[in-house]
Amino acid sequence: MFTSNQVVAAPIIVGRRHLIATSNRVTALLVNAGNANCATGQPGIDACKQSCVAVAEQFHCVFDEVFPSSTGIIGVPLPAEKLIAAVPAAKAALGDSEQHADAFATAILTTDTKLKVARASLEIGDRTVSLFGCCKGAGMIGPQVVPHATMLVYLFTDLAACPEHLQAMLAKAVDASFNCISVDGDMSTNDTVLLLASGKSEVPAEGESVPAFEAALQEVCDSLAHQIVDDGEGVTHVITLKITGAEGDSDARDIARSIANSPLCKTAWSSADPNWGRLLAAAGKAGVKFDPARVTITIGGLPVFAHGVRDVAYDEGATHAAMQAREYTIAMDLGRGHGQARFVTCDLTHEYVSINADYSS
Amino acid sequence: MFTSNQVVAAPIIVGRRHLIATSNRVTALLVNAGNANCATGQPGIDACKQSCVAVAEQFHCVFDEVFPSSTGIIGVPLPAEKLIAAVPAAKAALGDSEQHADAFATAILTTDTKLKVARASLEIGDRTVSLFGCCKGAGMIGPQVVPHATMLVYLFTDLAACPEHLQAMLAKAVDASFNCISVDGDMSTNDTVLLLASGKSEVPAEGESVPAFEAALQEVCDSLAHQIVDDGEGVTHVITLKITGAEGDSDARDIARSIANSPLCKTAWSSADPNWGRLLAAAGKAGVKFDPARVTITIGGLPVFAHGVRDVAYDEGATHAAMQAREYTIAMDLGRGHGQARFVTCDLTHEYVSINADYSS
Repeated sequence: MFTSNQVVAAPIIVGRRHLIATSNRVTALLVNAGNANCATGQPGIDACKQSCVAVAEQFHCVFDEVFPSSTGIIGVPLPAEKLIAAVPAAKAALGDSEQHADAFATAILTTDTKLKVARASLEIGDRTVSLFGCCKGAGMIGPQVVPHATMLVYLFTDLAACPEHLQAMLAKAVDASFNCISVDGDMSTNDTVLLLASGKSEVPAEGESVPAFEAALQEVCDSLAHQIVDDGEGVTHVITLKITGAEGDSDARDIARSIANSPLCKTAWSSADPNWGRLLAAAGKAGVKFDPARVTITIGGLPVFAHGVRDVAYDEGATHAAMQAREYTIAMDLGRGHGQARFVTCDLTHEYVSINADYSS
Repeated sequence: MFTSNQVVAAPIIVGRRHLIATSNRVTALLVNAGNANCATGQPGIDACKQSCVAVAEQFHCVFDEVFPSSTGIIGVPLPAEKLIAAVPAAKAALGDSEQHADAFATAILTTDTKLKVARASLEIGDRTVSLFGCCKGAGMIGPQVVPHATMLVYLFTDLAACPEHLQAMLAKAVDASFNCISVDGDMSTNDTVLLLASGKSEVPAEGESVPAFEAALQEVCDSLAHQIVDDGEGVTHVITLKITGAEGDSDARDIARSIANSPLCKTAWSSADPNWGRLLAAAGKAGVKFDPARVTITIGGLPVFAHGVRDVAYDEGATHAAMQAREYTIAMDLGRGHGQARFVTCDLTHEYVSINADYSS
């Protein structure tokens, strides 16, 4: 799954072509951090292809079985020669241990401060299916994968499944995880989520293995998505928005996203300020019809708003104290229908401004 | 014209009713700053009405000829008794000089740091038509008046025009001014733009006076809208976005708004960082189709991006220098059609975070 941004980087263009050409067979991933290879025109496409060719030669595969990803600054020509020169060392360092997986997960980080990995294993009959996921992403996070912003996610499993089935399972897992997070609401030109299945476990994706794998995939995606927000640029609070009682799920998600990306809500969260009027105002500009008199809001489980006014049980001091936790939930029920959404977001701090105002990031 | 937020304050509900009841006749404005009287339920409506009644008694008019506005914190009961107690002094201080007008414009300010007024006068035949406008608003500015965020705008003229004609002229002027600015993209529950015409000039709104008045109204609205952004919370740079070559004007405006409200663009502007990739990425997430290869971008008149890549004439140092000006224009041509938009916005700074993270603002 790729970014839905109208402007896409060269590796997205090349990667899409490669997946089509090989019917979704991937032998090697080539990821670079520091340069997004976006808005680099035909030279960017050429540089991407040249580096894929270099990898294919080392790995004895056809060059379109190499899947490229880039993350970093936009608009600067990609120095393909640097990537090509590094390929032999990267190949020599390959291995199949947990440490090797972590080394890959570490190499792809940019403004991230933490390693982001998640693992799951399933016992299916007398066999074990493994799933390993890792990702990078701290800013420009507002994915719509069709998803979000430079977020690179790689999922590896030894399940035996066809690409179409993997795609369908991935779409479902991504929609409820990576498409329901934001750091700043900005969507990258390079977002990619890739699920690769080797089939080595010899467990086919049928019968009981399907729901078991789907659950594990969701768990790994949820964990990685949460890790991205938790490590978001300048983040000091992680907020889970639970919107219920909407006419439909998409209404609920629109309201969640409007709150998640509201600078006024995000700055209030940074100082544990229970300024719940900003939640209402942000919900009200989402383009979704609702009656404020039927809305209820709780923060960290504490009653805040009901019957169109401040809840009679509202306790500003207690709410402020609850918001000092690094993580808490804000729940808003619209009192209309059964639509709901769960969205994970964060506060907006001085540190976010510092990181992104650094000339030239 | 009022906010299009789903959540609206008591004075908006009461003000709308009053305009209907009186067929748009207004005798007195009652504006308070510090309390938005929003999410205050029926007690908020009652408090608003009580204060209108108190004003009507002083001004010897029916109470629905009093037009109320409030701006300030959401969700705190309005202390009507304070407003009511202040009415006699407010009445005693009334007058018709320029100083009196400025005193009104000063009284409505909240986080604003500057007085925001604009004046125009027209010679029509041997008569003079005057127009005075003032407004407040520095944060929660992302109006859609239907418009934007707590922005209160009052326009006074002595033109002789019927309410329907005034409404039509106002809608046009607001669409190209207040609906094309943002500070933080947040939309208030209290936004109001009111145009009052006394008819005292005895110049009717017909013939040559119509285009002349429309031009003056546009000029005054443009000036006030610009003053709001210029005095936006924490603003150090005012950016005019000129989007051209879109399929239609609404596409151009969607792209302008996406750039204007992108935290990554806004933080880059704060440090005069010519990180134009962020402009492209923000344009690309606006939900508007375009071909990046046909896009051209200039910053402060300097070439930045063309033919899908960094412009050959791009000079990072010169662009950085141009962006150190307090005001400059970023122009983006999409190379598709004749749609265009002009949008005035600003940077996102530490100071914005400080102002809005102040517990409890």
